[in-house]
Amino acid sequence: STLLTRRGLATAKSPINLIDSLDTFTDRHVGPDDNETGFMLSKLGFDSMESFLAATVPPQIRIADSMISNASIPALSETELHSRAKELGQKNAQFKSYIGMGYHNAVVPPVILRNVMENPAWYTPYTPYQPEIAQGRLESLVNFQTMIMSLTSMDIANASLLDEATAAAEAMVMAYVQSNQKTKTFFVDKAVLPQTISVLKTRAKGFGIQLVIGDAADVLKHDALRADLAGVLVQYPDVNGFITDYSDFTKQVHDAGALVVVATDLLALTLLQPPGEWGADIVLGNSARFGVPAGYGGPHGAFFAVTEKLKRKMPGRLIGRSKDVTGNPAYRLALQTREQHIRREKATSNICTSQALLANMAAMYAVYHGPAGLERIAKKVHFLTQVLKSSVERLGFRVVNASSYFDTLTIDVSKHCANAEVMHAAAALLGINLRRVDHNTVGVTLDESVGQADLLSLMRAFHIAASHPEPDFTGLPAPKEPAFPQKLMRESDFLQHSVFNKHHSETEMLRYIFHLASKDLGLVHAMIPLGSCTMKLNSTSSMIPLTWPEFGGIHPFAPTEQVEGYRHIIKELEDDLCKITGFHACSVQPNSGAAGEYAGLNVIRAYHDSRGEGHRDVCLIPLSAHGTNPASAVMAGLKVVPVKTHADGNLDLEDLKAKAEKHKDNLAVFMITYPSTFGVFEDGVTDACKIIHDCGGQVYLDGANLNAQVGLTNPAVCGGDVCHLNLHKTFAIPHGGGGPGVGPICVAKHLAPFLPSHPLVKTGGSDAIDAVSAAPFGSASILLISWAYIKMLGGNGLSESTNVALLNANYMAHRLAGHYSLRFKNKNGRVAHELLIDLAEFDKSAGLKVTDFAKRLQDFGFHPPTCSWPISTCMLIEPTESETLEEIDKFCDAMIQIRKEAEDIITGKQPKDNNLLKNAPHPLSLMIASDKEWNRPYTREEAAYPMPWLREKKFWPTVSRIDDAYGDLNLICDCPSVEETASL
Amino acid sequence: STLLTRRGLATAKSPINLIDSLDTFTDRHVGPDDNETGFMLSKLGFDSMESFLAATVPPQIRIADSMISNASIPALSETELHSRAKELGQKNAQFKSYIGMGYHNAVVPPVILRNVMENPAWYTPYTPYQPEIAQGRLESLVNFQTMIMSLTSMDIANASLLDEATAAAEAMVMAYVQSNQKTKTFFVDKAVLPQTISVLKTRAKGFGIQLVIGDAADVLKHDALRADLAGVLVQYPDVNGFITDYSDFTKQVHDAGALVVVATDLLALTLLQPPGEWGADIVLGNSARFGVPAGYGGPHGAFFAVTEKLKRKMPGRLIGRSKDVTGNPAYRLALQTREQHIRREKATSNICTSQALLANMAAMYAVYHGPAGLERIAKKVHFLTQVLKSSVERLGFRVVNASSYFDTLTIDVSKHCANAEVMHAAAALLGINLRRVDHNTVGVTLDESVGQADLLSLMRAFHIAASHPEPDFTGLPAPKEPAFPQKLMRESDFLQHSVFNKHHSETEMLRYIFHLASKDLGLVHAMIPLGSCTMKLNSTSSMIPLTWPEFGGIHPFAPTEQVEGYRHIIKELEDDLCKITGFHACSVQPNSGAAGEYAGLNVIRAYHDSRGEGHRDVCLIPLSAHGTNPASAVMAGLKVVPVKTHADGNLDLEDLKAKAEKHKDNLAVFMITYPSTFGVFEDGVTDACKIIHDCGGQVYLDGANLNAQVGLTNPAVCGGDVCHLNLHKTFAIPHGGGGPGVGPICVAKHLAPFLPSHPLVKTGGSDAIDAVSAAPFGSASILLISWAYIKMLGGNGLSESTNVALLNANYMAHRLAGHYSLRFKNKNGRVAHELLIDLAEFDKSAGLKVTDFAKRLQDFGFHPPTCSWPISTCMLIEPTESETLEEIDKFCDAMIQIRKEAEDIITGKQPKDNNLLKNAPHPLSLMIASDKEWNRPYTREEAAYPMPWLREKKFWPTVSRIDDAYGDLNLICDCPSVEETASL
Ligand SMILES: Cc1ncc(COP(=O)(O)O)c(C=O)c1O
Ligand SMILES: Cc1ncc(COP(=O)(O)O)c(C=O)c1O
Ligand SMILES: O=C([O-])O
Repeated sequence: STLLTRRGLATAKSPINLIDSLDTFTDRHVGPDDNETGFMLSKLGFDSMESFLAATVPPQIRIADSMISNASIPALSETELHSRAKELGQKNAQFKSYIGMGYHNAVVPPVILRNVMENPAWYTPYTPYQPEIAQGRLESLVNFQTMIMSLTSMDIANASLLDEATAAAEAMVMAYVQSNQKTKTFFVDKAVLPQTISVLKTRAKGFGIQLVIGDAADVLKHDALRADLAGVLVQYPDVNGFITDYSDFTKQVHDAGALVVVATDLLALTLLQPPGEWGADIVLGNSARFGVPAGYGGPHGAFFAVTEKLKRKMPGRLIGRSKDVTGNPAYRLALQTREQHIRREKATSNICTSQALLANMAAMYAVYHGPAGLERIAKKVHFLTQVLKSSVERLGFRVVNASSYFDTLTIDVSKHCANAEVMHAAAALLGINLRRVDHNTVGVTLDESVGQADLLSLMRAFHIAASHPEPDFTGLPAPKEPAFPQKLMRESDFLQHSVFNKHHSETEMLRYIFHLASKDLGLVHAMIPLGSCTMKLNSTSSMIPLTWPEFGGIHPFAPTEQVEGYRHIIKELEDDLCKITGFHACSVQPNSGAAGEYAGLNVIRAYHDSRGEGHRDVCLIPLSAHGTNPASAVMAGLKVVPVKTHADGNLDLEDLKAKAEKHKDNLAVFMITYPSTFGVFEDGVTDACKIIHDCGGQVYLDGANLNAQVGLTNPAVCGGDVCHLNLHKTFAIPHGGGGPGVGPICVAKHLAPFLPSHPLVKTGGSDAIDAVSAAPFGSASILLISWAYIKMLGGNGLSESTNVALLNANYMAHRLAGHYSLRFKNKNGRVAHELLIDLAEFDKSAGLKVTDFAKRLQDFGFHPPTCSWPISTCMLIEPTESETLEEIDKFCDAMIQIRKEAEDIITGKQPKDNNLLKNAPHPLSLMIASDKEWNRPYTREEAAYPMPWLREKKFWPTVSRIDDAYGDLNLICDCPSVEETASL
Repeated sequence: STLLTRRGLATAKSPINLIDSLDTFTDRHVGPDDNETGFMLSKLGFDSMESFLAATVPPQIRIADSMISNASIPALSETELHSRAKELGQKNAQFKSYIGMGYHNAVVPPVILRNVMENPAWYTPYTPYQPEIAQGRLESLVNFQTMIMSLTSMDIANASLLDEATAAAEAMVMAYVQSNQKTKTFFVDKAVLPQTISVLKTRAKGFGIQLVIGDAADVLKHDALRADLAGVLVQYPDVNGFITDYSDFTKQVHDAGALVVVATDLLALTLLQPPGEWGADIVLGNSARFGVPAGYGGPHGAFFAVTEKLKRKMPGRLIGRSKDVTGNPAYRLALQTREQHIRREKATSNICTSQALLANMAAMYAVYHGPAGLERIAKKVHFLTQVLKSSVERLGFRVVNASSYFDTLTIDVSKHCANAEVMHAAAALLGINLRRVDHNTVGVTLDESVGQADLLSLMRAFHIAASHPEPDFTGLPAPKEPAFPQKLMRESDFLQHSVFNKHHSETEMLRYIFHLASKDLGLVHAMIPLGSCTMKLNSTSSMIPLTWPEFGGIHPFAPTEQVEGYRHIIKELEDDLCKITGFHACSVQPNSGAAGEYAGLNVIRAYHDSRGEGHRDVCLIPLSAHGTNPASAVMAGLKVVPVKTHADGNLDLEDLKAKAEKHKDNLAVFMITYPSTFGVFEDGVTDACKIIHDCGGQVYLDGANLNAQVGLTNPAVCGGDVCHLNLHKTFAIPHGGGGPGVGPICVAKHLAPFLPSHPLVKTGGSDAIDAVSAAPFGSASILLISWAYIKMLGGNGLSESTNVALLNANYMAHRLAGHYSLRFKNKNGRVAHELLIDLAEFDKSAGLKVTDFAKRLQDFGFHPPTCSWPISTCMLIEPTESETLEEIDKFCDAMIQIRKEAEDIITGKQPKDNNLLKNAPHPLSLMIASDKEWNRPYTREEAAYPMPWLREKKFWPTVSRIDDAYGDLNLICDCPSVEETASL
């Protein structure tokens, strides 16, 4: 039987392969059907896809079609994928976790689960770089910042970091930078979470920071240490449950000229005096217990808050309240130039993609519960912990931290158990996991999910271990006072802002969630052709398993034998990624592309080190590279040496050769993005790699543009040794409005031994570097999405996706030709999967900047492409394979119309300072102006409906263009207070 | 430990009951918190809820608080509900069903599942009576109508009916009416679905139609029958799988002056010649195999299509394409006066709530697959059926309908099996259900969900029964031709309209779904204070289990022992509804409120009959009753005698008494709505019921207003014998944009024996009437929602909901007093759960109609209340308990502002024909007008932003006021054709 063409449209009446599944994902994922790809090919002058590919991708790096095909990666139908995910999910044992250590069983309010986490309006948008079409999630992120500031009592908080451990690493580096790199010691209390300590070890190395782990009480006793002290990190409450009064200690550390960094817990802070009130400089932690599933380790939004003094040094994204040009309040990304990846080799952090969606979920959770609700939850958790303590003490067990605790008890079980494993076995009988502390000791952490029946079951485990009859509550003393020092009781109010005190009914919450979503342009509305970001379909089939409890409810440190389902999926994903990249081994631990770069560079350094070449520390990076590349290099302790590019966009191989040879003895690595950030497949890539290898260096391939490679070529064939993949680009994890992301690294065989380890769960190679993320498999739950994406497309679909991604971009280049100047193309006139158009001429002729074109595109209902990167006068446009011909044509029509509008300015028909582009975008609220107020040399209709199809469907920006300078000068990063709200 | 006040807001610092669950649903369901209810009570002059209730509800009908309390109905937390639903779901065995008989395993495209079925933007809106804020679902319903028209080749189709069986009943009555009730015989082919025949029996009775069941081939042979023939119903393909060529037959029936009604299958029609092409007059069926889960029987959208000639007689809602006052195309409900419930006792149908959400899902399915995709699915199903046939024939089984079939085989298994049960047992071993046909015969129906592995497993069952080794595909002849007469192959194209040929990628489909949703105002946006409709929160917790496969994937005729979970939930729901109504027994079979009325009246008739009083046929109905009451009465063969109401809105007890006594000998029933449709608790209800009982009648209580009763009073205490409940009102099933609904009836002990039966699954009492719905438990899957609602609120929460519903309405009445005239209240000045305001004065003083106020409310972002019902000059406003004080205040502020705008018209400041009300609503597209085009005596700002909060949040109508007359004159009920689209 014959195969169908895609969607069978062309061949409805012809024989079809009737026994096979019909719900073939490729048909749904790829936008254009066979008729449309045929049309596009013919417009480009090709008679087949193969001839088009031959003109686009250098022949020397092409791989055999069979390498990535349904034979090597079989395709599952959507239904089959669903069944397979169910089957594997059921191989994750549903134990109740009391392991704690920074991970809790969150109770996700159903209204947030369904309408945020499972809602493409929330999960498909991009990072809010275009604030006029992103006011919803910007508002929510300000709620997040406010929540953090209020609960920690700090002056300012960012909009999330990747996880608690990397947040601690950022804090460590800030402390070091704050001392002008004069003091080099960072002291970490031994009761800080072990995974945090592991990540600190990794990070300390690159910066040459001296990490000392010990008892905080001792830190100031040693003069030498004190003299070199940059900062101290304590955990509050600590890993064993103790709650320490650090107020005097903080003063002493400040007297020593160092910073106090506190890792803490948001729920505990509703009852405990917040670190900001006792002088902490930096406060951080994981916000996930506020309604984000454990998900075998993530993704979770870490928080990071600092004092006023430190705010301009803070890593990560920061949202500010500002105003638009008409004076209306508006949110925006603040202090963007502060963002580290913009600073390139001057950076001290490489954070870029963060955890916006998870931060938003946590913020929504606080909005829903409000201050009183959060306090109730905390009190209940604390109360149950107190009941548990009485109950185990009654059995004769010793609670090590009886003197102070919130939700965590460390219990010496030696009285009844030969060793702790006996206790764990008793717990396992009841489907319960406890924390493994040491030979005699177990840990128990309670959370919001624990109800009466759970508590009884937990008590029963101890009763079993103590060979004691059934537990009950009678006779247990009713706790009257909190189980921590009176002095540490929180006295201050929190979350008094209106937004946290009005959306407490489900109806109101639902409306708030929908109202914010209505302001944000996502993939549910239109193409988001952001170059280098690959905003493709995030299919429902790949998203559905994510929120099943089989995957959501798993603790990252659950015993390996309980997580067979997860392990199987991770293994399959790693194997498939190795097939796709041509590499040997993979680590999914890094939580973003930038984190992948950092991990990969550390692996390379460890490799050199293992060969006695630890001195190799030079990193060559083309000038066109993304800012995270030099930032990551610096963080890994490398010296960045830039490499030039030619006027035609290609790497200057002469310059590369010269620099490589110059630094031959110290050459560690060359970082290259392929196809280049200019959107072209360079012929010279294999030569370049050879030059590096000849000089003893390794090649790091930035895989952000892998969407142009899959099935046609791969980083190994190109000559690389390591690459990271942005699963949130090529492999269809939704961007979530600025995260989550996953940046796994794939490496050649010689590098496999060095892949990152984890202190609690075995990962990585035989000579593994320390951890780069808090969780062993990073943002494990969303790995499901990429796994499903690959499994449903299969090898054929993966290759076809690449083909169409290339075709769509080239068709777009063809349509825009004559209207805009394409900056770079290969010798056959072809671009890769994205195209760079240069708008410099319009600045000269009409005073129009890239931003003016971008903002005007918003009026057409489109998300603008990547602006001013990698060249300031350019736009980088990437349609991806998921967009149909119709959508691409509409986008091109819009661009061509804007070109005409620009012509009117060039010719003087429209004034340079008052025209459709300069005044863009035009929000709805402007339209109600009278003619007099309107006062523009064009009609409202020209402003709002420049194309006829906009009358039927248009996404409206909700504010006018935002005044960036004003916002940075008047930085306000929290919600309006009640008084402000009243006066609005 | 003390109890919390609701949401603990007042007592955050005071002791709380820490051991109990915190995720108490009442806190989330009820809008106002304790502070707010306290405030509202004080505004009304009450110092407690109890004193307010005492002034509102007549003391003689109050029940003890303990009757509906957490003691009688315990409350589960949201988390507990989730666990309980999981546990019960797992008690539904996941057998693969091949039972067929009108129910299939649908494959729901994930993008439709998540973004339509699980999306509150789609499931919370109301019936699109306000077309300016409902263009999205109106468009989708036109897609549904178009799909039906195109696949059946009929001239016009409605926007869904309740199920296939009631659709057949509607067709039967149409045939009868079409003959001017001269011919009374309706002939049904014996191979029509048995559940359809059962429902026809019920329906025939009331109209005095003579139902003859036999072989269609014989119908015209009997002259007497032929002479009295109103219509014939055939099934195509029939229940046994046969596909008959009815073209000659149809001609002959027409010659006999009767109508041909065809029950058919949409998927089969992609391959078969459609009934419209061979002359059918009415074509109907179930659309659910187009992507709607089986759900143990429903809800499913039935379809109904007729010839041009019959269009104005067609029951159900019909959507038409029309235009707005500015000439823009716009959709609307067409021919509304044709709707039967408007015609009251002249009606021949009572259909009101239908199955909009399910019709929309089916339409979206067709949009997603398109004509070629649908044909592919049909071909595959047919192909696999052919393979199965060869395979069972090879084993020696006899396929009874070997001569013609599409997806269904009837197989005589006597060759290998002592009886059919042996075959069923073999199938059960493999988790397979077959249809039970008779002693020697089983039935097998295939569907889209059947893949290769399923087919093998099914073949294996026959191999086991035949004691034959493992099955395989080798050696089976590859089918070359379809297995039905060549003449019946479909030649005509279908679904050529643009909408069915462009949204085939998931991205495009997603955008289409979101685009349509963006035009519709739902509970996700604002209050929908529709009197008599109880638009309360549809909580996520209650919606989540619905789409679990444990509930979605169950065939309604699955063996009872496989559906323990469903049975348990249905039993608990019935028990709770009996507790709530004070009645003895319950049937959940009716699929809407009106269907409940009809079922209840039939039960009453059966009761009278059983006592030898079958002649009782008079039904007293107050003039204020909903139109479905008289319509249902007439359908049950009753004579309607209207009863007057007093000027104060109360029932005229004198008139009631006089009429009851006048008709004493023939009095069957009195139908009453309580609280009355005027929104007041009448004191006289118990007296009224006594009058009726004294005259030998029964009392039917229309429970549409039960939201004012739960926990305070009940229909039994009021004196009723039967009531229906609208689960889609009081018990929180979402309205889905015009259905689904559920209208269970609860009855007193003496009526319990007569509750409806079902031909395939035992339901109802010992003297049961025939079925009223196709499925034994009606729209079984959504019963979960009401079950969850009741279980999560518990008795206390149910009562509190009622209290707050009453309070919210009374507070609203208080706020509107002085601005609008309240039409009715009780002697203490109190209304019930809704209020009726009379706008008649504005017609006199300013020429303003109710509609003008309603349309103007749209400009304020609100859904208008119920208009011109039950009194033409009035608005009936019902806020429900789920709305917060803030939302209620905003609504009242809007109403008061509109009152001011009306004043300007009264005083002549604004002209009567060109003002804010007459021109309302003001869609966004109007705003871009220049001053000259604008040309109105008010500003755009006054039009669009009459209240300051609208600047932050406003829902915009997408079209101007719709021209109703134009639409009815120029009836167009399908999508634009490709040519029309091109010319738009
Ligand atoms: C070329 C390139 N490299 C690296 C990154 C960093 O990836 P991430 O944002 O996941 O940290 C990006 C992000 O857009 C990129 O475009
Ligand atoms: C008083 C009353 N009775 C009966 C009905 C009919 O119910 P349904 O629409 O569910 O058929 C309604 C519907 O609005 C109603 O308000
Ligand atoms: O996120 C980026 O900076 O591309």
